[in-house]
Amino acid sequence: MRTFALVGHLAPTGDAFTLDDLPGSAGRMDILCRCVHAALSLSHGIRRDAEIHLLLLGPPDPPKDVLIRGASVRSLSPDERSTAALIRKALAIPVGEMFRESGPGILVRRGDLSGLVTGGDYAVLSETGEDVRTRRDLPAGFLLSDHLDFTTGEEGDLAALPRISVGPRVLHADHAIAVLQNELDRREAGWS
Amino acid sequence: MRTFALVGHLAPTGDAFTLDDLPGSAGRMDILCRCVHAALSLSHGIRRDAEIHLLLLGPPDPPKDVLIRGASVRSLSPDERSTAALIRKALAIPVGEMFRESGPGILVRRGDLSGLVTGGDYAVLSETGEDVRTRRDLPAGFLLSDHLDFTTGEEGDLAALPRISVGPRVLHADHAIAVLQNELDRREAGWS
Repeated sequence: MRTFALVGHLAPTGDAFTLDDLPGSAGRMDILCRCVHAALSLSHGIRRDAEIHLLLLGPPDPPKDVLIRGASVRSLSPDERSTAALIRKALAIPVGEMFRESGPGILVRRGDLSGLVTGGDYAVLSETGEDVRTRRDLPAGFLLSDHLDFTTGEEGDLAALPRISVGPRVLHADHAIAVLQNELDRREAGWS
Repeated sequence: MRTFALVGHLAPTGDAFTLDDLPGSAGRMDILCRCVHAALSLSHGIRRDAEIHLLLLGPPDPPKDVLIRGASVRSLSPDERSTAALIRKALAIPVGEMFRESGPGILVRRGDLSGLVTGGDYAVLSETGEDVRTRRDLPAGFLLSDHLDFTTGEEGDLAALPRISVGPRVLHADHAIAVLQNELDRREAGWS
């Protein structure tokens, strides 16, 4: 299983946002949607061996952890608007400590970064990390931030985790996920 | 200069489409927008050394070639909706054989695939191509299709071009561009 986790520092935790302004009033929801696409979409299907956690930290009810599972999600289109509609639906249902399903393969719970990485096998994507191509063993999970850096408090939660870099330029989170998926695809298939 | 070119088989060639339905009535315009993002966006800026041609073949007035130049484009947001608005603006102006600018770094002309590849230095992205990592020299340009395969007529135009593969899985065009950009970044910076 390949796991990705994205921290959306401004992403809404309620369903009262418009699909017409994902980068603005919806707290850069466009980034989260493109990361779902990069984590789960293949040209002709879904990556059934992948999942992505979206940690939403914006108003009105943070923190929430929306999990989309490639193994069971249905009708996942690659465009931002329809993905945002799925996330919005998940944000409309009551949350507790356990995951609850808002639709096939789409789950939501009360959850924060510290809880997510505790007991998980994550590396943090970072431009100062070890090159993903030369690192022999890769973890099962990869943690990324949206357009904002991790806060000092978050960095504390992540201090013990390994750091991995995908290349010499600082990429958008969705492109970093696409590059990681390609590296994992190559290792799985025995390509260089 | 890194050049990407994407064929949008159904993409509209007029400005009468809604931003609320990019994957549907706008002929998979969502794919084109994500490819612009992958070709030109860095986390904190624009790739000034890159450009992307969008070859639009849908109704009402095909074919059109919309060129977005990283060197001169301004106010390019990564989200699909605002990118589609820029493309729509380009489709509103009259076209001739020469490029005409609809805004800084955004140009449009009457142009087809055959004209684009003639005299250009392109490779075609293909799952049966040579692995991009092991190919010693890479061309300046990369040609991709949207969600549809190249037609038989298009394949005729492309018959003499080299084929390059980015990996063992068939990716969406935007993810293939992200992987290519990463490979080019690594070569430029002397990474493995």
